[in-house]
Amino acid sequence: MGTASMNRLAFSLGLILTAGASATAWSAEDLKAVMERRGLTEKDLLAAAKTYTPTGGRDEYLAFSSGGQSGQVIVYGIPSMRILKYIGVFTPEPWQGYGFDDESKAVLAQGRIRGKEIVYGDTHHPAFSETEGDYDGRWLFINDKANPRVAVIDLHDFETKQIVVNPFFKSEHGGAFVTPNTEYVMEATQYAAPILEDGFVPIEEFNDRYRGGLTYWSFDKEQGRIVPEQSIVLELPPYSQDLSDAGKKDSYGWGFTNSFCTERYVGGMERGRPPFEAGCSSKDTDFLHVTNWKKAEELVKAGKVKQEKGMYYIPMEQSIAEGLVFLIPEPKSPHGVDVTPDGKYIIVSGKLDSHVSVFSFEKIQKAIADGKFEGKDPYGIPIIAIQDVLHNQIQLGLGPLHTQFDSKPCIAYTSLYVDSMVAKYDYCEGKVLDKLAIHYNIGHLVTMEGDSVNPDGKYLVALNKLAIDRFNPVGPLHPQNHQLIDIGNDKMQLLYDMPLPLGEPHYVVAIKADKLKPEVRYKSGWDSRSNQKSAFATRAGRESTERTCDAEGKCTVTVKGTVIRSHINPEIIEAEVGDTVSIHLTNLERAQDEVHGFAMYGQNVQLSIEPGKTSSATFVADTEGVFPYYCTEFCSALHLEMQGYLLVKPKGYQATEVTMTEGTLYTQADYDTQVKTNLETQAVIDQVVAYITSKDFKSYPTVLALVEDATDQLGFAQEAKAKAETAAGSQDWQNAMLWANQWWQYQVKAADLGLRAKNLLDEAAK
Amino acid sequence: MGTASMNRLAFSLGLILTAGASATAWSAEDLKAVMERRGLTEKDLLAAAKTYTPTGGRDEYLAFSSGGQSGQVIVYGIPSMRILKYIGVFTPEPWQGYGFDDESKAVLAQGRIRGKEIVYGDTHHPAFSETEGDYDGRWLFINDKANPRVAVIDLHDFETKQIVVNPFFKSEHGGAFVTPNTEYVMEATQYAAPILEDGFVPIEEFNDRYRGGLTYWSFDKEQGRIVPEQSIVLELPPYSQDLSDAGKKDSYGWGFTNSFCTERYVGGMERGRPPFEAGCSSKDTDFLHVTNWKKAEELVKAGKVKQEKGMYYIPMEQSIAEGLVFLIPEPKSPHGVDVTPDGKYIIVSGKLDSHVSVFSFEKIQKAIADGKFEGKDPYGIPIIAIQDVLHNQIQLGLGPLHTQFDSKPCIAYTSLYVDSMVAKYDYCEGKVLDKLAIHYNIGHLVTMEGDSVNPDGKYLVALNKLAIDRFNPVGPLHPQNHQLIDIGNDKMQLLYDMPLPLGEPHYVVAIKADKLKPEVRYKSGWDSRSNQKSAFATRAGRESTERTCDAEGKCTVTVKGTVIRSHINPEIIEAEVGDTVSIHLTNLERAQDEVHGFAMYGQNVQLSIEPGKTSSATFVADTEGVFPYYCTEFCSALHLEMQGYLLVKPKGYQATEVTMTEGTLYTQADYDTQVKTNLETQAVIDQVVAYITSKDFKSYPTVLALVEDATDQLGFAQEAKAKAETAAGSQDWQNAMLWANQWWQYQVKAADLGLRAKNLLDEAAK
Repeated sequence: MGTASMNRLAFSLGLILTAGASATAWSAEDLKAVMERRGLTEKDLLAAAKTYTPTGGRDEYLAFSSGGQSGQVIVYGIPSMRILKYIGVFTPEPWQGYGFDDESKAVLAQGRIRGKEIVYGDTHHPAFSETEGDYDGRWLFINDKANPRVAVIDLHDFETKQIVVNPFFKSEHGGAFVTPNTEYVMEATQYAAPILEDGFVPIEEFNDRYRGGLTYWSFDKEQGRIVPEQSIVLELPPYSQDLSDAGKKDSYGWGFTNSFCTERYVGGMERGRPPFEAGCSSKDTDFLHVTNWKKAEELVKAGKVKQEKGMYYIPMEQSIAEGLVFLIPEPKSPHGVDVTPDGKYIIVSGKLDSHVSVFSFEKIQKAIADGKFEGKDPYGIPIIAIQDVLHNQIQLGLGPLHTQFDSKPCIAYTSLYVDSMVAKYDYCEGKVLDKLAIHYNIGHLVTMEGDSVNPDGKYLVALNKLAIDRFNPVGPLHPQNHQLIDIGNDKMQLLYDMPLPLGEPHYVVAIKADKLKPEVRYKSGWDSRSNQKSAFATRAGRESTERTCDAEGKCTVTVKGTVIRSHINPEIIEAEVGDTVSIHLTNLERAQDEVHGFAMYGQNVQLSIEPGKTSSATFVADTEGVFPYYCTEFCSALHLEMQGYLLVKPKGYQATEVTMTEGTLYTQADYDTQVKTNLETQAVIDQVVAYITSKDFKSYPTVLALVEDATDQLGFAQEAKAKAETAAGSQDWQNAMLWANQWWQYQVKAADLGLRAKNLLDEAAK
Repeated sequence: MGTASMNRLAFSLGLILTAGASATAWSAEDLKAVMERRGLTEKDLLAAAKTYTPTGGRDEYLAFSSGGQSGQVIVYGIPSMRILKYIGVFTPEPWQGYGFDDESKAVLAQGRIRGKEIVYGDTHHPAFSETEGDYDGRWLFINDKANPRVAVIDLHDFETKQIVVNPFFKSEHGGAFVTPNTEYVMEATQYAAPILEDGFVPIEEFNDRYRGGLTYWSFDKEQGRIVPEQSIVLELPPYSQDLSDAGKKDSYGWGFTNSFCTERYVGGMERGRPPFEAGCSSKDTDFLHVTNWKKAEELVKAGKVKQEKGMYYIPMEQSIAEGLVFLIPEPKSPHGVDVTPDGKYIIVSGKLDSHVSVFSFEKIQKAIADGKFEGKDPYGIPIIAIQDVLHNQIQLGLGPLHTQFDSKPCIAYTSLYVDSMVAKYDYCEGKVLDKLAIHYNIGHLVTMEGDSVNPDGKYLVALNKLAIDRFNPVGPLHPQNHQLIDIGNDKMQLLYDMPLPLGEPHYVVAIKADKLKPEVRYKSGWDSRSNQKSAFATRAGRESTERTCDAEGKCTVTVKGTVIRSHINPEIIEAEVGDTVSIHLTNLERAQDEVHGFAMYGQNVQLSIEPGKTSSATFVADTEGVFPYYCTEFCSALHLEMQGYLLVKPKGYQATEVTMTEGTLYTQADYDTQVKTNLETQAVIDQVVAYITSKDFKSYPTVLALVEDATDQLGFAQEAKAKAETAAGSQDWQNAMLWANQWWQYQVKAADLGLRAKNLLDEAAK
């Protein structure tokens, strides 16, 4: 070759040269020609300008969408409509290590149903934590309809931290909704079932022994965890309770939950009975449940509520006696129940009605205070007459479903499922202002911070169902379509169609991006799921592998290891067949993009170890053999060499005396050449170091993190250098050369980090 | 209320009215103001115009990306850079039912390693099937690095149909690459391991008993399946084989596979040995493996190759003796090996080199023909001298990695990992033409159809690693960044940053969208995974539930059911505790957007049943209780009522005589009102039917599908009407009213389908 050492030098020197490419890669084609070629109208161009976000640009809002039957949460930016993250919630998500590392397995294990591990969810309604009714950007809650559960996601690192199972419900659709200071997270049943019993109850006893319910999950904002033992469950009639919203401002302390199938119809086509759909939609009204959580809380504090299944449980008779629950007829098979930003009105959308019904909280309170009821339901709950509390009803179109609010007073937007439209209207005056066709079958919609006490308006996203013809066809299972609509002007303008390729997202909440201040790395040795230092945190040089056996001869190999570009320490792990292997790896890096992964052949081991994190994989080595492992993130040019082997030996295996035969032998000349390269590289590094230390680099956290990493690498380089020199001193050219090479590897990484630090400093100086 | 029946009528009549909203929702803000507000330059606007795709627009290309450690495949459109689909491949994907329905569980079960179910993969390199070196749009192949496997995806429905496990390998990175007529799919090992043995082999015997290898998986294009028993495995030295490419045109019949760590170094930091990264990067060259698959195939046909583990296995000695494998030194720790469209050159990128090396296939053939070798490797494989076969070496920059081609002759693009750049150059003349900085750490790249014999060029996508600062921060785990670059002009222009929130996508292939003709529905009762009529296909009215017990008293409840908006038939399933429950559901719909789901409380049951499909869920009902189930797709306004119950009774439970107590009782007046509504609705339907049948609706498959569905619904309406009238005849007003309501439900669905058919006809007429 001859060029090898030149290449090496170019490689190391090149690290100090910044990208030299032309910055004027302007296209030869002009705007008009592009528009013509692509068939864009001026209106399209305006829409493009309203959403297109150039490289490095930031979105104004972050949307958190349920992932439907994926069981996850989807995070995307508005107005760019680009998906930034999936958060593993109820379903294992291997690339995040979620459901694979021991730490997150413990979170998923909290969500077991009747002892059974559940490996998916049907996420429906995300909700932000609130302070005084405003999003505070700290937590996100989301429910699982299929298996009645609620999850808590920490917005400091976008990770799921807790899953609670509702021990009373067997189905729930209406969660999560939070009270204005995140005192409680609301979760209502959907399909009635026995509530205190878990066993079989004949369906013929539906009216008597099947029940609905509403849970107010107590949330500890200090710990960031739901506290089941402080939570309150209200028994409700066997209606299909649906969505909820918490009262705010004027209506603070109250909750509103709608329902369908108050006919209490039970289908059974196979028995010759008309199907559920017939019997559940025959009445013209269902019931809005009005509940007083503040008073329920007082009852709990007064010691008047019994515990069942580890939570406070309030039977219907007690709720009725204490005035905790009231019903109001609402037209018909409603879905959305949405409290206006001032808390004065509750807007209900009856999917089989053509109106939204606007209820006045003041009138509701008056009816309750006056004891003015039109009757009771079969379970004795007082019914308030609709005409006593209605503010108005506004004819919008077919299939009204969900309502969100604008920053302008009295302005609301409601989705129309059957019409495939969005209606904008004045709910104070009862006047329709604008309607826009969408594509197609809109479910929920969201405006920016649209269900808080201070909606921003600006954009609206329509969550449309299967997008049969909006995009290139991709087989019988179509993407969903989230359409971005500009609501900044009098007329709504459709801006963008965003295909969503994951489940059926039901509901989205959107928050001002600047309210979120996510971390970029963890403290060293951090267990992110329990949010504390891991018992297995390991520092560089302190890696260990231990095999211990208990009295029954059950053995465990415990590895406390580290990962740093570009090696996993240890590189060889030995076990005997049948051993439990427990591998705990700490990522020693501080640079943001130095996530390392850890995958192993045939063992379902897949970790994602972000800078600082300690992640663990425990499994039984149940067959003898050779199991390669490696880093799954492209972390450096030597990423593929970040590898190792688990060797699972026969039980009681005794090694015969074998020494490693080297594949390649090195000479003094190899060593000398390597050392020459290293010294040249050091000169480059010294320049970078001099440059950085001449600046106020400690003022920039990102730069400081890089410098700390670089300093680590230079420390390792010194250790490798010492080893190389020791080996050379005893004329062991093999080890001398290899350690000299490793010394250079550390130098290259230090130089790379240093260069990035330098570039960031230069950027900052601009 | 008083308005109820009016609402009802509005509801049904409204179905005939098309969306009446203003079509001129033009914004008040002008383009200049928007650009100013959003900080867009003219260059940004041009880029926006090149990518923005208005509602209903189509992308020119579809990109199929590996999903890295997610184990899946990601499909997105170019130039809009919108994600259209995830395809479940190696990881369960609940919202698709993948890994949840029995049919897809059987596919995942093919991928078991040593009997163990593997619940993720590390997908790396997708490849399209080819005919004469050109993409034919029929199949996609992708590998799993962690667990050496290859999957086959059918592009007719974008579903994974087959997974094959490589029984020889314990790791593989370099797959999948196809030969020009999809005769074979290439898959190479990564980390050497015992190849014929599965048990423990001491790592000290690395040189002698650890091996690499290269598999040519035989593919049956008629069946669309890999045929292991026709496939060929070449034993190779314990180098870390990496990527491959198949020869084409001039080099047809040959394959090229590069490698790193030809030093055969084994690390072991925990033993005081320098790490892998030091020993695996100390030599200046590694080896390009040149293999003759055509000749290997001839040997197989001549009966000269033995079978091992059910495949044809060629030991190194045989390969050497028959001239199947040759080595060429290649600089240094290379990644990409890419054959030019004409098949004349092979471009190798050494990640630790600053050049790409262009090898001449003609020169390689001459050296082989002349028997001109510079020596043999330790295993006796002939080594061709690099200077004998090099066409040229082109200095591009640091960390060259992967090369793709343009439609213009001799033009190639190579990613530069360390420099974070893309280089454009003329590989015939050895001249660099342009360089563009990307953000950051590019791995692979793709041009349109860029590794076929007829590249389109036009766009290039740079697959960049963790996007630390390109988007809003979302915690320590960042999205990836696929940057779209316009390569239609002399200078490259960056157009768009697309965050990718799923794993670390390694490699993308992109195909002309019009080459794909995916299906929109299945034939009725179709098992899509085995691509044949399901044994459990069920027609309307033929639903059944049977409980059978074997001699040991093990019982199975077999449900053959159907789903159609908006009911699941059966609505009540009964079992005894311990029974196996096997539910098979056929979606009776033909309309494209009428996918139904099926989820059940606490049983890990989650099906996605696209129109025509039959999906199955089998589980053991291991606890007594009441288990609600429901449809997980928002399929109609009565979607939430699409529900049912599994009742798991105690063993040997005998029902006491209980009859259903109705929750709501109906009178003759209710029935009469309902019938009146139904007759009015029928008048509306008759208008729609008259309109449609006056047109040539059979010429439009989509319209025809809707009309067929509507006809079904009207048939059901007739049945419900008859039942209502029978009940009314015997003054059973309860059943009369409920069936009358169900009659109306069918009418509403028929009207909805009819309206959609009418709208499509009107569209077509424009």
